[in-house]
Amino acid sequence: MSPAAYTLAELAARVGGRVEGDGGARIESVAPLEAAGPADLSFFSNPRYRAAFEATRAGAVAVGPGEAAAPGRNLLRAADPYLAFAKVSALFHPPPAAVPGVAPAAFVHASARVHPSAEVMPFAYVGAGAAVGARTILFPGVYLGPGAAVGSDCVLHANAVVREACRLGDRVILQPGCVVGSDGFGYAFDAEGEGAGPRHYKVPQAGRALVEDDVELGANACVDRGTLGDTVVGRGAKVDNLVQIAHNVGVGPLSILVAQVGVAGSTKLGAGVVAGGQVGIIGHLHIGDGVKFGAQSGVTSDVPAGEAWSGTPARPHAVWLREEVALRRVPELLREVRRLRKEIEALKGKP
Amino acid sequence: MSPAAYTLAELAARVGGRVEGDGGARIESVAPLEAAGPADLSFFSNPRYRAAFEATRAGAVAVGPGEAAAPGRNLLRAADPYLAFAKVSALFHPPPAAVPGVAPAAFVHASARVHPSAEVMPFAYVGAGAAVGARTILFPGVYLGPGAAVGSDCVLHANAVVREACRLGDRVILQPGCVVGSDGFGYAFDAEGEGAGPRHYKVPQAGRALVEDDVELGANACVDRGTLGDTVVGRGAKVDNLVQIAHNVGVGPLSILVAQVGVAGSTKLGAGVVAGGQVGIIGHLHIGDGVKFGAQSGVTSDVPAGEAWSGTPARPHAVWLREEVALRRVPELLREVRRLRKEIEALKGKP
Amino acid sequence: MSPAAYTLAELAARVGGRVEGDGGARIESVAPLEAAGPADLSFFSNPRYRAAFEATRAGAVAVGPGEAAAPGRNLLRAADPYLAFAKVSALFHPPPAAVPGVAPAAFVHASARVHPSAEVMPFAYVGAGAAVGARTILFPGVYLGPGAAVGSDCVLHANAVVREACRLGDRVILQPGCVVGSDGFGYAFDAEGEGAGPRHYKVPQAGRALVEDDVELGANACVDRGTLGDTVVGRGAKVDNLVQIAHNVGVGPLSILVAQVGVAGSTKLGAGVVAGGQVGIIGHLHIGDGVKFGAQSGVTSDVPAGEAWSGTPARPHAVWLREEVALRRVPELLREVRRLRKEIEALKGKP
Repeated sequence: MSPAAYTLAELAARVGGRVEGDGGARIESVAPLEAAGPADLSFFSNPRYRAAFEATRAGAVAVGPGEAAAPGRNLLRAADPYLAFAKVSALFHPPPAAVPGVAPAAFVHASARVHPSAEVMPFAYVGAGAAVGARTILFPGVYLGPGAAVGSDCVLHANAVVREACRLGDRVILQPGCVVGSDGFGYAFDAEGEGAGPRHYKVPQAGRALVEDDVELGANACVDRGTLGDTVVGRGAKVDNLVQIAHNVGVGPLSILVAQVGVAGSTKLGAGVVAGGQVGIIGHLHIGDGVKFGAQSGVTSDVPAGEAWSGTPARPHAVWLREEVALRRVPELLREVRRLRKEIEALKGKP
Repeated sequence: MSPAAYTLAELAARVGGRVEGDGGARIESVAPLEAAGPADLSFFSNPRYRAAFEATRAGAVAVGPGEAAAPGRNLLRAADPYLAFAKVSALFHPPPAAVPGVAPAAFVHASARVHPSAEVMPFAYVGAGAAVGARTILFPGVYLGPGAAVGSDCVLHANAVVREACRLGDRVILQPGCVVGSDGFGYAFDAEGEGAGPRHYKVPQAGRALVEDDVELGANACVDRGTLGDTVVGRGAKVDNLVQIAHNVGVGPLSILVAQVGVAGSTKLGAGVVAGGQVGIIGHLHIGDGVKFGAQSGVTSDVPAGEAWSGTPARPHAVWLREEVALRRVPELLREVRRLRKEIEALKGKP
Repeated sequence: MSPAAYTLAELAARVGGRVEGDGGARIESVAPLEAAGPADLSFFSNPRYRAAFEATRAGAVAVGPGEAAAPGRNLLRAADPYLAFAKVSALFHPPPAAVPGVAPAAFVHASARVHPSAEVMPFAYVGAGAAVGARTILFPGVYLGPGAAVGSDCVLHANAVVREACRLGDRVILQPGCVVGSDGFGYAFDAEGEGAGPRHYKVPQAGRALVEDDVELGANACVDRGTLGDTVVGRGAKVDNLVQIAHNVGVGPLSILVAQVGVAGSTKLGAGVVAGGQVGIIGHLHIGDGVKFGAQSGVTSDVPAGEAWSGTPARPHAVWLREEVALRRVPELLREVRRLRKEIEALKGKP
């Protein structure tokens, strides 16, 4: 990996942690507990991996304040050991840096503005009037439609698409195949079809998709443009692979949408909403700040801020849990009710 | 947006509506109720947005025949106000028009036939013997395999793929990243593997995918080719982002498949089937004309024409609803049965 | 299709079957029962299609050992008729063969190694230090990142992406739009954000995605790279369209993941695991060899080898089935319990 090296003490100072053991230990990389060697920092917090922690050959391990460890183990104690570890990892694995310039095999329209520090790789396409900010990288096969604008320090991986007039803020990352600004799914049923019989009349999707600063969108994720007005993915939100965000949706800042989530049209998610994998949310809902949805839940009503909901149709997690436990007992309940029936019949027969 | 402008009366005449108020009002665009100004036509039908309707600054609003409105409000009354609005919007937002010609940075095989009025943008690829119809647009990164044929007035957005021998009719739209003609998922288990041990032997996927006139396929949606024979998406069907259509499926004309639906192999959907988001339909089923599936349902049996089904496993919507209501009461039922048990024990103990 | 022709006896010899009827029958292609003509071999095993079998005009039909057939029908009897049919079909539909060479409109970095027998089509990109093996085909729009390595006899369809440092074995097939090596979805919550307020700090995704020999990945499927260490798709596994495989997942050899399945981070699937369409599996689980999951199930716990589980949350199939049957009876149970309540009240009133 990187040729960089730090002492454990240097790392602790940089990421705001405290050393236990040998602060002079030389750390050259990061590695998982099982694979780590004496020059690696590793990380431990999930108790499921305690055996690996105890057996690791890592030169040091980032752990939380209260974590017990065998004597002699070098530790990087941090209030949030995962965050500390992530910051150390980023020292050894810096994000890709733009190699300024437009490749001869790229296409940049004469009216587009590409910052001189940006990198446009072969087969990337920058349409009329599009803009690319400082230090942004467009990988091969990236498409920026006419009038699209991409901020500074963005990375658009191979074959990512940003259609016309859409906007990405600064430090946005699009994983490969991600699509921003596809047409929303809107049709008006037209029984006549001007004499040709029934058809679904396409409603123009004339709005935009706006992706704010520090957003990351996953591989093959889709963000539709608004019908009128805009679809918005708010600052710092993170969206996993194969997620669908429909027209005129608002995703609040710092929200987290795990893989294969679908959010239907015009639904507004507050700040810091978390949706587990494969969650579906129907259209025209308001989901409050900080709401959490369990994986695969199906959301069909507004949800107040701060609540955790699960199941299909989604309901408060505690209600869902109580019901799930109860449902498991229905086969037994059927038998018990048959017994009660018999006993009542017997009682009725009693003189 | 468009520099076009119309009087309200002109718009009403074009889309088959009736003016209430000032027919001379000048309309230059369309906008949602909250954002509309005096030169915009807006639209109101969902009562959820009544407050916005009452407060709107729109120059005119399309509404249904029976809708009440404050005096002085300019209205475009239409039997179907949403359809009328969509048609007005299309006047201001016409679909992209081909700029005829093949870009120097495109690849068109010598044996391919591209209509002179079609547009082939940089980095689009048209394979041997492929055909592109009049006024069709191939955006950058589009791939047409050998022998593929695309009709007239189609739009294939960036990075859409149509593999060899597949066919698109006229006025077909492929959103970015859409794939037509990928291999179906077919393997024969081969315990011997010709001496090398077990393997999944790939069954050749030698059929085609046929996409009929007026179909739209969403971003990153997938339509597999047939194993033998063809996968067919029927005339006027609309398919949303990230939908999976497996080999030898038939999607009936005018069907609507919302985002992330999956239809397994050889299932035939009738005309006008509607599947909500994330619905899954297993293979080898027949789904009748006009069937509707609630979001996230899991369809495991044939369904007669005209029915609405929901849930997993899917069942008639009314049955599903009654059961869902009942299931919510199971925790209470468990308590009640415990009480009955005690009371029966007491009765049995009675002299 | 192919100009090749075989006698039925030749085909039987090649695929290990036995002829009943005219071994000299000339077979020029394969076709489904309804479409087959006298020069086609067809295939029958699903009893749902018996009528088509009886009516077919096929020159011969591959069937299993015990299958009854009308006299005069030419049969290719085989222990596994589907496998025999697949092998015959492959004679008529051989996989694409590389036309050696790098297209002028492709980009191959000076430091990349492309085997002279490989084919690199226009607009394919091969990054620094990347390697492409013998007879491998890169279709247009394929991206191989720096240091990526692809083995021999692979087919990477249009717009497939293999990011930096990832590896594909031999005979791997990527359907169009498939992504290998996208960043895993990993963030550490950072309440301070170095003074700028809360943010999700991106955890570097520094591992790789390794795809072993004989794997096929579907259209727009996604395999994330590991955070540290690698994501692995094992030998001979088959992965359908739009599947999500998260960071550090292990997919065991010969596993089958049907369309739209999602496997969350660090979960390990054993050998020969089968997951039906739209299954979701949460992270950090161990799923034993040969486990089968019913379509749409939601897996939330470890599963021992050899078991079949269904439902959400997934449980042993027999338990799930018993519970599903019981749940359908809850509306009736509510009525019965109301009746019992009344009868008990009556009994209590009895003198």
